[in-house]
Amino acid sequence: MSSNYRVVAEEPLRAFTEQVFRSMGCPDDDATLAADVLLAADLRGIDSHGVARLPGYVRLWQRQRINAIPNIKTVWETPTTATIDGDAGLGLVVAPRAMDLAMAKAREYGSGWVAIRNSNHFGIAAYHALKAVGEDMIGFAVTNASPLVAPTFSRERLLGTNPICYAFPAGDYPPLVVDMATSAAANGKLEIAERASQSIPEGWVLDPQGASATDPSALKAGGMLLPLGSDYTHGSHKGYGLSSVVDILSGVLSGANYGPWVPPFVAFLDPAPNPPGEGLGHFVGAMRVDGFRTAETFKTHIDNWITRFKNAERLHENQPVIIPGEPEHQMTLKRKREGIPLVAPVWSALETLGAELTVPLPPTAG
Amino acid sequence: MSSNYRVVAEEPLRAFTEQVFRSMGCPDDDATLAADVLLAADLRGIDSHGVARLPGYVRLWQRQRINAIPNIKTVWETPTTATIDGDAGLGLVVAPRAMDLAMAKAREYGSGWVAIRNSNHFGIAAYHALKAVGEDMIGFAVTNASPLVAPTFSRERLLGTNPICYAFPAGDYPPLVVDMATSAAANGKLEIAERASQSIPEGWVLDPQGASATDPSALKAGGMLLPLGSDYTHGSHKGYGLSSVVDILSGVLSGANYGPWVPPFVAFLDPAPNPPGEGLGHFVGAMRVDGFRTAETFKTHIDNWITRFKNAERLHENQPVIIPGEPEHQMTLKRKREGIPLVAPVWSALETLGAELTVPLPPTAG
Repeated sequence: MSSNYRVVAEEPLRAFTEQVFRSMGCPDDDATLAADVLLAADLRGIDSHGVARLPGYVRLWQRQRINAIPNIKTVWETPTTATIDGDAGLGLVVAPRAMDLAMAKAREYGSGWVAIRNSNHFGIAAYHALKAVGEDMIGFAVTNASPLVAPTFSRERLLGTNPICYAFPAGDYPPLVVDMATSAAANGKLEIAERASQSIPEGWVLDPQGASATDPSALKAGGMLLPLGSDYTHGSHKGYGLSSVVDILSGVLSGANYGPWVPPFVAFLDPAPNPPGEGLGHFVGAMRVDGFRTAETFKTHIDNWITRFKNAERLHENQPVIIPGEPEHQMTLKRKREGIPLVAPVWSALETLGAELTVPLPPTAG
Repeated sequence: MSSNYRVVAEEPLRAFTEQVFRSMGCPDDDATLAADVLLAADLRGIDSHGVARLPGYVRLWQRQRINAIPNIKTVWETPTTATIDGDAGLGLVVAPRAMDLAMAKAREYGSGWVAIRNSNHFGIAAYHALKAVGEDMIGFAVTNASPLVAPTFSRERLLGTNPICYAFPAGDYPPLVVDMATSAAANGKLEIAERASQSIPEGWVLDPQGASATDPSALKAGGMLLPLGSDYTHGSHKGYGLSSVVDILSGVLSGANYGPWVPPFVAFLDPAPNPPGEGLGHFVGAMRVDGFRTAETFKTHIDNWITRFKNAERLHENQPVIIPGEPEHQMTLKRKREGIPLVAPVWSALETLGAELTVPLPPTAG
């Protein structure tokens, strides 16, 4: 392992993360839950959404934009739908509570759907969708996010990277999980290129003047991410459309902010004035597989689907077709064994945070 | 209007289409419904999915792959979920019945979700999703389709263009409708390029050897469509993932066929041997907006969303940002006034069909 990395075992990193959340004033259960969501990202290899974000949550709490002791309330309800007010709590805590409610409704009525307002970033969507899979349900989770993406034909940041996640139980295989930003490239990929001083492909970013950019710093300089599809010819209106769906389900339906009014994740940027809603929003849902056919039959066919796609003819001999969610499952097994590599800037930020909050750092290797 | 087009008024074209379905043996109500779905496509400007497909349905019926008098049955049910067996009926008839059931469940419980197996092509997804909007519900409709799309890293057709549609009610604006193939380009765009002897952009199609193709005939020659995103660098794994979600909801969950086993729409190709399911599949759903907040408040905010996005800074002065569903709404108003233009090959196919079934053709202009 290069000296640009420190490797930390899962459990000490989890204990450190929990302790940081407790230092913020989170109740023990909430600290445990929030740490579990962040660790799930690190274990799955979604490094941008794991403990790398821990300082960000602390900074928002310090600015009083995150409430460590939220009174999470169900403010609207039918047998299978509800709206939850997260009381400015951590999305890492609010979203799992919302998913619990969706699953309770699904247990009783077959499906359950919960819109969440007045929340904050909820980590990886897959964490929330996968909760449902454990009970043989199909899980769904989306969230809106700070505006970084320009709609097709615009040069204004009006949408977040607004991820969509669907998770399905399988039989012999790990769950099939589609968890994707609706932008052409996620912000994390730009950060990796920037750290490595590499250029990025055309089709990811426009510069502030609206011209195609291959410099990864163009986004921070005021540029914008492009929707999935990159340009109109290649279907960017579809990426824009999907991102709009996420924004409407998460923000317009719940009473959260939407579009350019979604509050920024970074504490040094202030939220927009005169917002039309409260905080940012999520939308989660669960459907019992056995609301449609037996779970056993479904899983037999999912396994058949996966086997067929794994055996698809390849474009390049050494590159098999990837089953959505399988690389993240393999990465989880590997990192549980070998530990979680943290790049130097992330480790350094955790050192600062630990010193500030007097939380002892986990031991590292590498 | 060029002589390559005939213009037909809506009502005579509708009457012709109904009569063709009645000639197939469809009950009157079913013929009316099926014609309504096809006409909606023509009115909205989705010419590839309107009466252009009418001969295709007739040919499938002649091959006994469409049952004109289906016994559509609910075969599995919870309060908010169900599976419907379409008995090999027209998807144009089966899917609206399924949406009726989803909406009945939503009226009672807040949401309703119906998987459909043993069906055929259902026309445009927007027709089905928009039914829900009329009752202030959010509509959802997806379908799998004949395999034409290769997953990322494969050169095998394993997925259809598998569209996704979400429709939301608005206040002063028309409904916001995202209705999109999950491929980079829809088949219809290739047909238009082929008729005009034009090349297509890279990123839409691979040739049978898996190389990038700019000849629109490459698909018919055994090539494959690319998922939304076009290549891995630009996120084609996301298009592949979305298409997989559609395939699993439509096929694996319902008991229909999925992946490469989805039966072809064209009658001259036989279905795959030893299929794992029955016919092709759809999945539709409805959620009451007032399951989350009042419909009035929601619509006020949707209008605010739309106004904000309409006024987004433009990349090109003369090209405003498009609100999903608005061009199709405008086209509907125009074609209801001015008639529906049918290209010469479509008109010619309708002439043949009319002669064969002794259904008098509608009057035309142009």
